[in-house]
Amino acid sequence: MYDLVILGAGSGGYAAALRGAQLGLKIALIEADKLGGTCLHRGCIPTKALLHSGAVVEEINEAASVGVKASFEGIDMPGVNSYKDAVVGRLYKGLQGLVSAAKIDYITGWGRLVAQDTVEVDGRAYRGRNVLLASGSFSRTLGVEIGGRVMTSEQALQLDTVPTSAIVLGGGVIGVEFASVWRSFGADVTIIEALPHLVPNEEESLSKALERAFRKRKINFATSTRFAGVEQTADGVVVTTEDGKTYEAEILLVAVGRGPATANLGYEEQGVPMERGFVLTNERLHTGVGNIYAVGDIVPGLQLAHRGFQQGIFVAEEIAGLNPAVIVESGIPRVTYCEPEVASVGVTEAKAKELYGDDGVESVEFNLAGNGKSQILKTQGFVKLVRQKDGPIVGVHMIGSRVGELIGEGQLIVNWEAYPDDVASLIHAHPTQDEALGEAALALAGKPLHSHN
Amino acid sequence: MYDLVILGAGSGGYAAALRGAQLGLKIALIEADKLGGTCLHRGCIPTKALLHSGAVVEEINEAASVGVKASFEGIDMPGVNSYKDAVVGRLYKGLQGLVSAAKIDYITGWGRLVAQDTVEVDGRAYRGRNVLLASGSFSRTLGVEIGGRVMTSEQALQLDTVPTSAIVLGGGVIGVEFASVWRSFGADVTIIEALPHLVPNEEESLSKALERAFRKRKINFATSTRFAGVEQTADGVVVTTEDGKTYEAEILLVAVGRGPATANLGYEEQGVPMERGFVLTNERLHTGVGNIYAVGDIVPGLQLAHRGFQQGIFVAEEIAGLNPAVIVESGIPRVTYCEPEVASVGVTEAKAKELYGDDGVESVEFNLAGNGKSQILKTQGFVKLVRQKDGPIVGVHMIGSRVGELIGEGQLIVNWEAYPDDVASLIHAHPTQDEALGEAALALAGKPLHSHN
Repeated sequence: MYDLVILGAGSGGYAAALRGAQLGLKIALIEADKLGGTCLHRGCIPTKALLHSGAVVEEINEAASVGVKASFEGIDMPGVNSYKDAVVGRLYKGLQGLVSAAKIDYITGWGRLVAQDTVEVDGRAYRGRNVLLASGSFSRTLGVEIGGRVMTSEQALQLDTVPTSAIVLGGGVIGVEFASVWRSFGADVTIIEALPHLVPNEEESLSKALERAFRKRKINFATSTRFAGVEQTADGVVVTTEDGKTYEAEILLVAVGRGPATANLGYEEQGVPMERGFVLTNERLHTGVGNIYAVGDIVPGLQLAHRGFQQGIFVAEEIAGLNPAVIVESGIPRVTYCEPEVASVGVTEAKAKELYGDDGVESVEFNLAGNGKSQILKTQGFVKLVRQKDGPIVGVHMIGSRVGELIGEGQLIVNWEAYPDDVASLIHAHPTQDEALGEAALALAGKPLHSHN
Repeated sequence: MYDLVILGAGSGGYAAALRGAQLGLKIALIEADKLGGTCLHRGCIPTKALLHSGAVVEEINEAASVGVKASFEGIDMPGVNSYKDAVVGRLYKGLQGLVSAAKIDYITGWGRLVAQDTVEVDGRAYRGRNVLLASGSFSRTLGVEIGGRVMTSEQALQLDTVPTSAIVLGGGVIGVEFASVWRSFGADVTIIEALPHLVPNEEESLSKALERAFRKRKINFATSTRFAGVEQTADGVVVTTEDGKTYEAEILLVAVGRGPATANLGYEEQGVPMERGFVLTNERLHTGVGNIYAVGDIVPGLQLAHRGFQQGIFVAEEIAGLNPAVIVESGIPRVTYCEPEVASVGVTEAKAKELYGDDGVESVEFNLAGNGKSQILKTQGFVKLVRQKDGPIVGVHMIGSRVGELIGEGQLIVNWEAYPDDVASLIHAHPTQDEALGEAALALAGKPLHSHN
């Protein structure tokens, strides 16, 4: 009998296992594929490696403008892939070492919930005083058949050549990241998005700024445009949209979001409450059935690896009786790693107005034109802060090269409910990009320093 | 009669002017050289532009390892300089716009304190109910004659060729930054430092890590080595050190720190308290004489532009009666922008032990080997956190590419006296470098996630 049996060893599952083991719990961690899950093997990490190769290309193309003579001679896609695979491999090895050192029972195989306290793998039963469902997600396809020139991010990560042209179906995080990489690598890229904006879950001003930046980078996109179908030809794909237009390219990436991987795992049979394939939990991540918890992409909300980490740690601490604080979903930072990067935490201005009334919200934008380091990096963008009037900062929204790194500070500000004055009184290091966050706080506190507004 | 007469329009002076104007003060801002001072024209900004050009070279040299085919064809030094000058020019123009829009009386000319409430410029007197001394600093030279192949950072920023070899006297911030740039540009570089370590004001573990990184980059350095003299020859310099060794190179950069620019400005005559050229103030930046305040590099302590901003804002608010909180010097973030970057805020472990006793301090190092984004960037380094036992985090110390951007979060942690648990409960965005700061906090809170220790 284990203290905790975990079904799925992705971000949520392994974080629960590691934290549980630290707390003295006896743990079974079950995984059919690889320890680390989507994020490490097919998601966050490999895509960011590609994006870095893309960033290097952009630096080279801009090198002359900073006095460096260089020529770009092409992408060595096998080289990109071995770099990417080496990064993944190193982190994978590290993670295996951690799980092994923690004396977690790691079981390879397809697990299935066969009782409220039991997961079965290859005919063998693993019983736990608690069970954690952490089976992750898969690429949705809207019914489009995947194969050949039509692919999801999983296949796109394995390409051994750079496409000359690509259509990306979906302008969310995954779509814009691949569009950004391929454009950096020289491809003609067109994004098709059904909603009115790229990265439609972000503050609208970020979406608009990203669209301007993509236009400048000659990344094509059609928003408010609904996909109708795709045909594969001898040398490409022809995509048709509901407005009757057609788009041709060498490949089609279907990046319309990720669905919960919960089918045929026995969840329904054991009475786990579900909706559209997602597992429903209370705010303490308990399903209400037996001692079954759920974390990560199968729980409705942000599908992000670090949300998985946080939820996994939460469940381990909950089971160990530490009574951890409930996770505030809006306090989880979000980063889209395209060029320029988009990062946010807290609520949008529109959402803040819903919460506090139209007159109950103040906001400010600090343009990166006034930020020395951003000028040095030649990036455009801004930091937008949203506050409750006479209250704390409730939203941080940023766009610009590398701004993803600044969201850690944004996260402390929002989660610790800092007032603009609390931040403004602490002058940031000059010249950093991070300083822009401080300048925005200065402006919102009524004492702008380098703001041009 | 002005409310505030400011002598010197560098970081400290113009920040006081802008904040004072916002608060309704009538202000005279006096500057002999250019608005923006050392930082904008001869310091932070131009050096960071050079460092960015250097970073681009490094990216190109590493490009093949990330699958990007490119060749580096040399440095176009006039191109580097026009890039650098364009960045400075753009920020300068912006700053001029801000000062002009704020209706500050900007006076060009050499000012001199001729009475406790009066600064004279070209025979014309500017009287103020308050006076702020903000005359800045100059490059110290240890008595070495500057000229020809022997230069300070000011001349080094104007070089129109890349030296084939350079000796850098001084392994502090300015020295290691120039060493880093020139090495990236292909020069043979040797740093001579009298103290036992490079960046000797930092946590010793950071110094050692920087030394390892510099060795790997083939930047030579001799620590615990005292300069004896320099001779210029037809095609280079010969530096001798007290241990009897000689070093030869094309140029010598003297980077032994900056002295206060306070001579012949009338300060002593008006009774302003001084020591070794610095102006002494109380913690509220008042000199104790008349209504004379002082800020920036002339006040003993960290010589950093953002300290100047913060002090300038403080004085303006003090004069306006806002009673601002005293600035805690150790809470000011420090960044050295060499490759790899070094960043810190708060106290070192050694200092913490002085404050809280040998048994009263805990620390942890999170190695960037466990940080995905750092692996993607191929950088080594670590984040070290120092806490008072059972108390808040009192020091954040980091080394690695780009870690300077993370110090904004470090600054909030230290100044807001956060406990490791306060940070650890907020999971950072994955995969960012910033996450390493969160991982260090997790480890220090006793719940490491991806730490290999």
